[in-house]
Amino acid sequence: MSIKVAIAGARGRMGTAAVKAIQDATDMQLVAILDYKNDGKYLSGTEINGDSNGIPIFTSFSTMNQSIMPDVLLDLTEPDSVFKTVHEAISLGIRPVVGTSGLSDENIKSLSKLATNKGIGGIIAPNFSIGAVLMMKFSAMAARYLGDIEIIELHHNHKVDAPSGTALKTAEMIMKVREPHKQGHPDEKELIQGARGADLDGMKIHSVRLPGFLAHQEVLLGGEGEMLTIRHDSFDRSSFMPGILMSIRSVIDREDLVYGLENIIE
Amino acid sequence: MSIKVAIAGARGRMGTAAVKAIQDATDMQLVAILDYKNDGKYLSGTEINGDSNGIPIFTSFSTMNQSIMPDVLLDLTEPDSVFKTVHEAISLGIRPVVGTSGLSDENIKSLSKLATNKGIGGIIAPNFSIGAVLMMKFSAMAARYLGDIEIIELHHNHKVDAPSGTALKTAEMIMKVREPHKQGHPDEKELIQGARGADLDGMKIHSVRLPGFLAHQEVLLGGEGEMLTIRHDSFDRSSFMPGILMSIRSVIDREDLVYGLENIIE
Amino acid sequence: MSIKVAIAGARGRMGTAAVKAIQDATDMQLVAILDYKNDGKYLSGTEINGDSNGIPIFTSFSTMNQSIMPDVLLDLTEPDSVFKTVHEAISLGIRPVVGTSGLSDENIKSLSKLATNKGIGGIIAPNFSIGAVLMMKFSAMAARYLGDIEIIELHHNHKVDAPSGTALKTAEMIMKVREPHKQGHPDEKELIQGARGADLDGMKIHSVRLPGFLAHQEVLLGGEGEMLTIRHDSFDRSSFMPGILMSIRSVIDREDLVYGLENIIE
Amino acid sequence: MSIKVAIAGARGRMGTAAVKAIQDATDMQLVAILDYKNDGKYLSGTEINGDSNGIPIFTSFSTMNQSIMPDVLLDLTEPDSVFKTVHEAISLGIRPVVGTSGLSDENIKSLSKLATNKGIGGIIAPNFSIGAVLMMKFSAMAARYLGDIEIIELHHNHKVDAPSGTALKTAEMIMKVREPHKQGHPDEKELIQGARGADLDGMKIHSVRLPGFLAHQEVLLGGEGEMLTIRHDSFDRSSFMPGILMSIRSVIDREDLVYGLENIIE
Repeated sequence: MSIKVAIAGARGRMGTAAVKAIQDATDMQLVAILDYKNDGKYLSGTEINGDSNGIPIFTSFSTMNQSIMPDVLLDLTEPDSVFKTVHEAISLGIRPVVGTSGLSDENIKSLSKLATNKGIGGIIAPNFSIGAVLMMKFSAMAARYLGDIEIIELHHNHKVDAPSGTALKTAEMIMKVREPHKQGHPDEKELIQGARGADLDGMKIHSVRLPGFLAHQEVLLGGEGEMLTIRHDSFDRSSFMPGILMSIRSVIDREDLVYGLENIIE
Repeated sequence: MSIKVAIAGARGRMGTAAVKAIQDATDMQLVAILDYKNDGKYLSGTEINGDSNGIPIFTSFSTMNQSIMPDVLLDLTEPDSVFKTVHEAISLGIRPVVGTSGLSDENIKSLSKLATNKGIGGIIAPNFSIGAVLMMKFSAMAARYLGDIEIIELHHNHKVDAPSGTALKTAEMIMKVREPHKQGHPDEKELIQGARGADLDGMKIHSVRLPGFLAHQEVLLGGEGEMLTIRHDSFDRSSFMPGILMSIRSVIDREDLVYGLENIIE
Repeated sequence: MSIKVAIAGARGRMGTAAVKAIQDATDMQLVAILDYKNDGKYLSGTEINGDSNGIPIFTSFSTMNQSIMPDVLLDLTEPDSVFKTVHEAISLGIRPVVGTSGLSDENIKSLSKLATNKGIGGIIAPNFSIGAVLMMKFSAMAARYLGDIEIIELHHNHKVDAPSGTALKTAEMIMKVREPHKQGHPDEKELIQGARGADLDGMKIHSVRLPGFLAHQEVLLGGEGEMLTIRHDSFDRSSFMPGILMSIRSVIDREDLVYGLENIIE
Repeated sequence: MSIKVAIAGARGRMGTAAVKAIQDATDMQLVAILDYKNDGKYLSGTEINGDSNGIPIFTSFSTMNQSIMPDVLLDLTEPDSVFKTVHEAISLGIRPVVGTSGLSDENIKSLSKLATNKGIGGIIAPNFSIGAVLMMKFSAMAARYLGDIEIIELHHNHKVDAPSGTALKTAEMIMKVREPHKQGHPDEKELIQGARGADLDGMKIHSVRLPGFLAHQEVLLGGEGEMLTIRHDSFDRSSFMPGILMSIRSVIDREDLVYGLENIIE
C-alpha cells in the first residue's frame, strides 16, 4: 500500500521538484497540496505546477481531512508558518517531514513532545542531502582517530554568511567527539590577519566565495604522515529528493520526532 | 600497568619505526626483540636499531619466555615465517599483532580457531593506516545510499600492479553492500580501449601511475545532483604507527583474533 | 562605436544565452537574427526568445544585408548548414564566430583561405570556455618540463563517448610537445583489464562517468617529488559567454580565420 | 663539453641532493666544493657527503681558481655569507646559480649590475621547483581572464608563518595583472572572524596547517559557471633538482642575472 503524502509549500523550487519526485516514487501517492489560496482547485489548473494534474488543493487542514487523510505532510514552507502547520499536522495524526528552517530549539522540543505523546514519527531536517549528511557523520566518526581538522567550504559569491550553515553544523558534530586543542604550530603567526581562518575550539574553518561554485565542502583530517579528506559537492537541488523520499518512508515506521537526517541514516 | 611488547621483524623500515613508537608510548614497554641472529645481545649493540638500548634479543620463544613473558607480539617479519611465529605466540598465550602479509585464508582460519580456543585476542592487518581503513569503511557505509561508485587510486610509477591492493580491498568491501549494476550510459562507447577503467560488478577502478605520487586513493560516490568523495593520502610510513599502537591496546581486551583493522575501529 | 552582431542559431540553449549576453555587452549591438523561418518578424513576437524585443529576423543573408550589414555573424547552428552559412558570411565581408561543431578539416581550410583572401578575421571554436582552453594551453606548456602526464575527465553518466572531446583535444595539444614514451613501471601489470586507462603515445586518459557530475577534467603532470594538477570544472553553459564575447571582439581586429580559442588567448 | 660546476653549501640536505644530481647529469661535472673548512681535502674523506669521491674542497675562491676555474657556482649557503660569495664569483667570471634566500632588493640590484657589466649570466631563485613556478606563472596568466581568485595553501603544522612565502609570491604575481576589487558578496558577513581568510587587494588567501601535509597550494580562479584550479604538491626536495640543473644550463647562455625561475621558463 502506498504512502499518502500532502505537500505544504509546493510553489518554491524545492516544492516543484518534490511534487515531481513524489509522483515518480512507486511506493507513494501525492494526495493533496496545502496552499495559502486556490482552495478547491486542482494543481493542473494553477500557476503552482503545470505538469501535475488532478491533485486537489486545500487552504486548511480541516477541509483537507474531510476528503483525504494523508499519512505524511511534507512541509517546505516559509519559517513563519511552519510551527503552526506542523503542530496541527501532528495533532491530527499526520506525520511531518519538515525541510523548512526557522524552528527554534523550543519549537522543536515542543513538537517532539507532542509527537511522542501521539506516538507518531516525524523528522525535521535542515539539510535533506544524504551526501552532505554522510560527510558530516563520517567527519565526526573519523575525528575520534584524527583529531586535527580543518574545514574548507566553497560557495558562489552570492552567499552572504561565512562560514556556511553546513560547515558550522559539521564543526558542531565534530566538537562533540574532538578534545578541544589549539592546532598548528604553537607559535603560529598570521602575517596577514585571517590567513588561518575562523577558529572553533582550535579547529579551523575557511570560507571560499567565488563565481562558478555552487555548494561544496571538504573536511580535512590530518594524522602523522596521512590525510583523510571527505568532500561533498552539491550541484543541483535534485540532490535533496532522495533524502526527502527516505524521510517520508522513515517516519511511517517511527514513533518519535527526530531532528537531522543523520538520525535515520545508519 | 604497561603492556609488555616484543617485536619480531625489527630490522625493516616499519620495524625501526615501530621500535621507536612503542618506546615512546607511555602505556607500553618494549621488552624483547625476536631476531634470526644476535641471541643474547642487546639492541643497542647491533646494527638493527642504534638508538635503542637495553632491549634483549632472542632467537627463540623458549629462551625469551624463560626471562620475559611479553603480553603482545608485534610481527612485522617476512611472509614465509609469519605463520609459524604467530602460531607459537598464540600457543604460549602471547597476543599477536600481525602486519606481515602472506597469510593464506586457511592460515588465518587456523590461527583464529587457536586464538578462540585459548581465549586470547589478536589481529592480522594488511594495512595499519587508520585513515585508509576509515576511507574503506566509510565508502562501504555510503554505498548503501550512493551506489554509483568509481575509485581512482594514484601511486608512484615504481608500482607494478594495477589496481592497488587497497583499491581492490575497498571495492570488495563496497561490493558486499552494493547491488551489482552496470554504471555509465547504457550505450557507453570506449573510443580508446581502457578509457573507462577496470570493471568490478559494474563499478570502475582507475589506476594512475606518475612520478611524484606516493600512495593516494579517492572513492567517488555519485548521486543525482551531488558527489561524495572520500580521499586518503599516505605521505609517510609514520602513518602506520597509530594503528599499530591501537591494535596492541585492543588485543589485550579481546578474546578472539580478527582480520582487518576495520574490526577494531568503531 | 559598437560592434553589430547577427546570430544564426538563436533557438537553442546556447543561442538563448548568447542573445542575452550580446544585448548585455556595452560594446556590442544585436542587430539581426538569421532563422529558418519567421522572416520579417521580430524576436519578441516569436517563440525563439521572449525577453528580447525589436530584433528583426531574416531567413536569408540577402534580405538581411539590404537593411542591416552586421560586422560579425555568431553561428550556433546545426552541423549540416554551418559550412554554407559561414561561407556566405565571409563572401559578404561579415566576420564569422562559429561555435558549431561538424566542420571537416577540408571545410576549415577552405573557409580559412577565403577569409585570408577577403582579409577579414574569423574564428571557429569547438569550445568557448576560456577556463577549459587555459587548462589545455597550460597543460601543453607544462608538458615540456613535466612529461609524465595522465588526464582524468569526469562527466555525468549520460555521456556516451569516452574519452571526452576535450580530453582528446588536450592530449593532442600535449602530444605536440611531449616526447612519446611509455609511462609507469616498465613491467606494469593490469590485474584487471582497463585499470591503467586509455593509452595515447604512452600517456593515459581515465574517463569517470557518474550521476552528479557535470563536466570536469584534471590534467596531472608528475615530476620527481612533485605534482602539478590543472583542473577545470564546467558548472553551467553561462561559462561559454565570455569566450564568445572575446571572440567577437577579436575577429574585428584580425585579418585571418583561426581554429581554436587558444589562438586568441595569450 | 660538460659544464664545470662548483657548489657552496654542500652540507645541507639540499646540498647533499645537489651533489648527487650534478654528478648524475651527463652534461655537467662537479669540479669543486667551497666549504668553511676542510681546505685541501676531498669530499669522500669528510663528513659532508660520503658517497662522493675525488671532489676537491676549498675554503677560498683564490685557491680554487688556481687549480680549477668552474663555469658555474651553485650557492646553497646561509643568508649571511651569500652576498659576498656571489659577488666574488661574478667578479671572477663564474656564473652564479643562487638558491639561498636572504638577499635584499639592493643586494640583487647590485649583483645584477655587476653581472651585466661583466656580461655573464646568473640566476637567483627563491624556489627551484619548476612545478611551483609553473603554478605561479599560469595563475598570473589566467588572472587576466578569470579575475576572482582565492589561494589555499596547505602545509604541515610545523610551519610558523601564514600565509606561506609561495602563496605571497603567487599573489604578488597575480596582483600585477589583476584589477584590485573586493570579491564575494558586497554585504559579506563573517559570523566568525577570519572565515574569509587573508585579504590582498580583495583576493583571499587561506592557510591550512595539519599534520600529514608536506607543502601544497591550489589557486582557484572562478568565472561565471566555471572554475579553473591550478594545484602544486611538493612531496620531496628531489623536486628542486630539475630546476637547479635547468638553471645551470641556462646561465651559460645568458649575459645577465635574473631573479626568479619564472624568467627562464617559457
